[in-house]
Amino acid sequence: MKNFEDIQEIIKNSINNLDFNLEPRLLYEPIEYILSIGGKRLRPSLVLMACNLFTKNIENAIYPAMATEVFHNFTLLHDDIMDKSDMRRNKMTVHKKWNENIAILSGDAMFITSMQLALKTEEKYLKSVLDIFTKTALEVCEGQQYDMDFETKNDVSEKEYLKMIILKTAVLIAFSLKLGGIIGGASKKDLENLYNLGINIGISFQLQDDFLDVYGDVKVFGKKIGNDIVSNKKTYLLIKSLELADYNKKIEIIKLLSEENFDNNEKIEKITNIYNSLEIKELTQKKIKYYFKNGISFLKNINVSENKKTELMKILKKLINRNY
Amino acid sequence: MKNFEDIQEIIKNSINNLDFNLEPRLLYEPIEYILSIGGKRLRPSLVLMACNLFTKNIENAIYPAMATEVFHNFTLLHDDIMDKSDMRRNKMTVHKKWNENIAILSGDAMFITSMQLALKTEEKYLKSVLDIFTKTALEVCEGQQYDMDFETKNDVSEKEYLKMIILKTAVLIAFSLKLGGIIGGASKKDLENLYNLGINIGISFQLQDDFLDVYGDVKVFGKKIGNDIVSNKKTYLLIKSLELADYNKKIEIIKLLSEENFDNNEKIEKITNIYNSLEIKELTQKKIKYYFKNGISFLKNINVSENKKTELMKILKKLINRNY
Repeated sequence: MKNFEDIQEIIKNSINNLDFNLEPRLLYEPIEYILSIGGKRLRPSLVLMACNLFTKNIENAIYPAMATEVFHNFTLLHDDIMDKSDMRRNKMTVHKKWNENIAILSGDAMFITSMQLALKTEEKYLKSVLDIFTKTALEVCEGQQYDMDFETKNDVSEKEYLKMIILKTAVLIAFSLKLGGIIGGASKKDLENLYNLGINIGISFQLQDDFLDVYGDVKVFGKKIGNDIVSNKKTYLLIKSLELADYNKKIEIIKLLSEENFDNNEKIEKITNIYNSLEIKELTQKKIKYYFKNGISFLKNINVSENKKTELMKILKKLINRNY
Repeated sequence: MKNFEDIQEIIKNSINNLDFNLEPRLLYEPIEYILSIGGKRLRPSLVLMACNLFTKNIENAIYPAMATEVFHNFTLLHDDIMDKSDMRRNKMTVHKKWNENIAILSGDAMFITSMQLALKTEEKYLKSVLDIFTKTALEVCEGQQYDMDFETKNDVSEKEYLKMIILKTAVLIAFSLKLGGIIGGASKKDLENLYNLGINIGISFQLQDDFLDVYGDVKVFGKKIGNDIVSNKKTYLLIKSLELADYNKKIEIIKLLSEENFDNNEKIEKITNIYNSLEIKELTQKKIKYYFKNGISFLKNINVSENKKTELMKILKKLINRNY
């Protein structure tokens, strides 16, 4: 079994080997840039580790793994325009460093590139991989649209929120695991296990992201605390507060959301106090663990020896405990 | 042989049968909208007519033909954001009717949909069709980037301009013809003929578009005359004028391009007068005919009986003579 460091090394080299030294420069430079500023490379790691559960030879999974990473970065590129985010991974976003038109177009080119990488899948799996890949890609768009719909909606239910993050985040993680399984020759039953593992872990990760925006350690998290609060983002914490608050507290929250010229730190403090009073912290931690454990139960069901699962288990645990 | 009206009817029904009655509505409504406001459906027509050269049964080409139409409309959607165009086919553009975020995201979803339609290609042709489709899609992005690069460049050469319109316009027309040929079972030689027909006809059409912006009949053309002049678009006519003008006239053109608060009609008149004095009208007409004839020579080389080519020839001639 390859360990996580081996896998990361393979991915790093494979990304470096992608050739974007092409003309016109203003189309390809932003692609090089966003791929070079890193990130956890979670999705391609999952492809390769899932493949490695079933076969030693993960060579055939490398290009498909690159496809998930390039696709993911394409969604970040377009999402950053839509969310008007100026920074990503402590660097300027593409639309800020260049401009919006360049971000739109190089994003388009990235998505096409991700399809080209997926097209290097072994021919016997090609059709099914592309069917699931395009289905997943469309779901990610749906998730992003729901997320935008929620901006002007103060009565988002937990169910609606879960549906949104499943589409926006979890399906791509689930697809990555399943993709690795397909190329590794997993059984239909195990492909389902991998997919369900991904959905649950994906939900868990997103809930944790929401959680860390309020309760994370800024030094570990790498993002400013309270970003989501300032931008009125409909996180799990906010949605749950709106659901659990009594009439007066609900009015207070909505007032905080609608005020235009608020001092950011004051707003963060006030909303955090409301979360604390409603025990949102504990509630969210419970949910994170619930979905994580749920996911792991699907990993346990996968029909390969337990020792082969150790590395994947280790990395999933590391990711979920990373900051609290 | 199916005639052009039969082909148009098939395309109309097939587009109507595409199901975008899906949630979230703000993702799928703009797709329905842009596909419903028509256009010439040139690309899917070319797919089906090219296929029909080699086989009576064009059924298998219908979904791939839809893929070219959906892809083309995706590029229009994103190009309209980048060009800040408010109107398209006498209707509001998507980013104007909704907003930019919705136009970016539903454009992304359209591109994914076009890939899904292409995935319905018969399995034996699937890999090669998708390889050429994604290559073409990337070239179209490159063309759009060159077009944007030209906005701030006053020394675009004819060669650079031709390269740009080949990428932005001609390769998709060439791909459409070749795609029909592949599905119809054409020989490698005839696939090349189809592709070269498409490149030349595509150049010819784009030159004609440039030409009609200045010399077209507004009632037939359906667009306001002089749009390209007002927006300083680097058309063939402008590029050629900058190349052929003497020093003083060149200064005059550049001055007209750089003035901010110009009366539009006056600007159109002045630029048109310069074109006339440099015989740009005749020169452009000559070029349009040159590439058109060049294209037709590749059609003549295709190894099927002449009577099978009649319908395709007729429609190409109709398109090129449509307004002058």
